[in-house]
Parts: sequence; structure tokens; C-alpha cells
Amino acid sequence: MMERLPAESAYRILESGPIVLVSTRGPDGRANLMTMGFHMMIQHDPPLVGAIVGPWDHSRRALSQTRECVLAVPTVDLAETVVDIGNCSGASLDKFERFGLTPMPAQTVDAPLVRECLANLECRVVDDGFVRRYDLWVLEVQRIWIDAAREERRLIHHQGDGRFSVDGETLDLGERMVKWRHLMD
Amino acid sequence: MMERLPAESAYRILESGPIVLVSTRGPDGRANLMTMGFHMMIQHDPPLVGAIVGPWDHSRRALSQTRECVLAVPTVDLAETVVDIGNCSGASLDKFERFGLTPMPAQTVDAPLVRECLANLECRVVDDGFVRRYDLWVLEVQRIWIDAAREERRLIHHQGDGRFSVDGETLDLGERMVKWRHLMD
Repeated sequence: MMERLPAESAYRILESGPIVLVSTRGPDGRANLMTMGFHMMIQHDPPLVGAIVGPWDHSRRALSQTRECVLAVPTVDLAETVVDIGNCSGASLDKFERFGLTPMPAQTVDAPLVRECLANLECRVVDDGFVRRYDLWVLEVQRIWIDAAREERRLIHHQGDGRFSVDGETLDLGERMVKWRHLMD
Repeated sequence: MMERLPAESAYRILESGPIVLVSTRGPDGRANLMTMGFHMMIQHDPPLVGAIVGPWDHSRRALSQTRECVLAVPTVDLAETVVDIGNCSGASLDKFERFGLTPMPAQTVDAPLVRECLANLECRVVDDGFVRRYDLWVLEVQRIWIDAAREERRLIHHQGDGRFSVDGETLDLGERMVKWRHLMD
């Protein structure tokens, strides 16, 4: 059950630094996935995300050609899959098929959503001015889908070298955020 | 007990997306702190970090003038302090004093380390070419200090609006990282 969130909520998903999958579909129609840990929120509204996708990533070509992608946010049950996706290349195999993941049509981009992920963010490249120097793509989030029915919601955070911290308890300190009320519901 | 890590280990601390404090010291000698959730690893080696510090942040002036800062990484015991630091301005108060934090001399920058944090990363601005467009500063990590004796090591990840996920269990999938061995010990 995919529920839509406003694109301006991107920071609620990405600011916490979860590992994500980048889904693309090249002009040849082939979908691909890569694992990405180097990304950040750049701006709340419009929601901009910075993402490092380098020439060593097979997905870079499709991203560069189509200027769109989906950021799919997996939960802890997919941890091994996430690592394995980052350890093989879409040049030689169909990762959706290989890893038993289900591509679903997105609304604003051709790149597929990943059904097994908790959240999917449809994104467009809005600035490639920092790609030459740092392989840094500026993406604007267009649509966000969240699997509201899902029980497992613990994201995983890459500490490097294949070590992840799994979300533990949640701490709600919202009532102390006096300066930032304008961002909240 | 502050133990030094190689600067190239920055990704082990920052890739997981923990909330951080940015410590600066202006040309007038005044130290200040801000809370930052919008940051990313850009590159492993040399270790580059992207950080959003906007004109709405009092620390921006010191960062811009001195071109250096310390990224201090707090653990869950400091969660309320971290939120409160983000909800007042260094224009009108000394945040180290107000929040009972201890500035310690760094080695390569004038900005102070924060003794109560698990890790402190001494950083220099190496590129301000994206500041005008996105308030995005590219920092190079110079030194990393880690409090090796500390028992509490759970980082907190901002989900926006004052909600944090606290590090739970750790998952070590390093043996699956076949493609990235060159980055590991």
C-alpha cells in the first residue's frame, strides 16, 4: 500500500542519512539499481537532494541521459540485498530480477519504484554543475510514496565498510523546536 | 580520552548521517556552536564533506571569515542539548557556557573541539563555489578525534521536526563488500 507524502517531506526521510537504492531506467528501457550512502538534503522547499554518483557507477550513464531517478529507501530486512546490489554491476545483469525486487511504475519519471522499499522518492536532476568536480548531482524530489501498511520500518545507516547501524528507539523532541515551527505541520 | 583516527576514516562517522554540531571561532575569538543535519560525505580520500550553512546561521560568518570549523558528533545523552543549541543564536549568548560544554584546543584549526562529543573532526573549507547557489560548503577533514573510553556511543539521526532515531543494533556485513576491499583495513 503506497501512500503519497508531499515532496516537501523529503527531509523526514533523507535527513537521517539512511542508505538508499538509486533506481534508473536507461533510454534502452533497462532498469537498474545501485546502492548509495553519499547523499544529503540540500534544501527543504523545493526539496533538493545532493547525491554522489560517479563514473565508477554503471547507473551514472542512465542518470546522465534521462536526468531522472528514484531514491528507494530500504529497511533492515533488505540489508543483505542492499549490500549485494552495491557489489555487482548492472552492466552484466538485471538487478531487479537477480534480487527478487519488483519494479513499479512511477508517476513523474520513467525510472521504476521499488515495491519492497519503505519509501520511494521520484527525482529529477535540476543541476549538474557540480558533477565534473565532485560527481555531485542536485536532484529535486517530485513525488514521495510511503508504504504505510509496512510493519518493518527500521532504516539502516552505513558506517562504512559494510557496517550498518539499525534504527533503534525514536526520540520526539519536537516541542523544543521553537525556532523551526514554520516547517512543521 | 581522545584518540586520533586517520582523516580518511571520516566516512565511518559521517556516512551514517548523524546529527552534528558545527563549532567555529570567529576572528574576535568567540567560539560558537550550531546544530546541522544537512551534510554528506562527498569523497573518501581526501575526505571531503558537504555541509549546508546558510545566511540564517550565525556561524556562517565565522566559517566564511576563518574558513575552518570542527564537526562534533554527539551521542544520545546530548539529544536535548543538540536541539536547544539549534534553537537559539550565538549572536546573543555563549553556547558552550550556556549548555555546559567544554571547548578543547584542536590541532589544525582555531575552532574548538567539544569534549562531551564522541567524535570531533577538524575541517577546512576547500571550496566555496557552491555557496552562492546552495549554501553548500565543501570541507576537507584534517584530523579526527574519537573518545575511545566513552561507553555511550549511540548516535542520533534527525528525521526532521525534532524527531530522532537512535542507533540500535549494529549489523556487520563487511564480508559481503567484495567490490570495496580497497577501502577497508
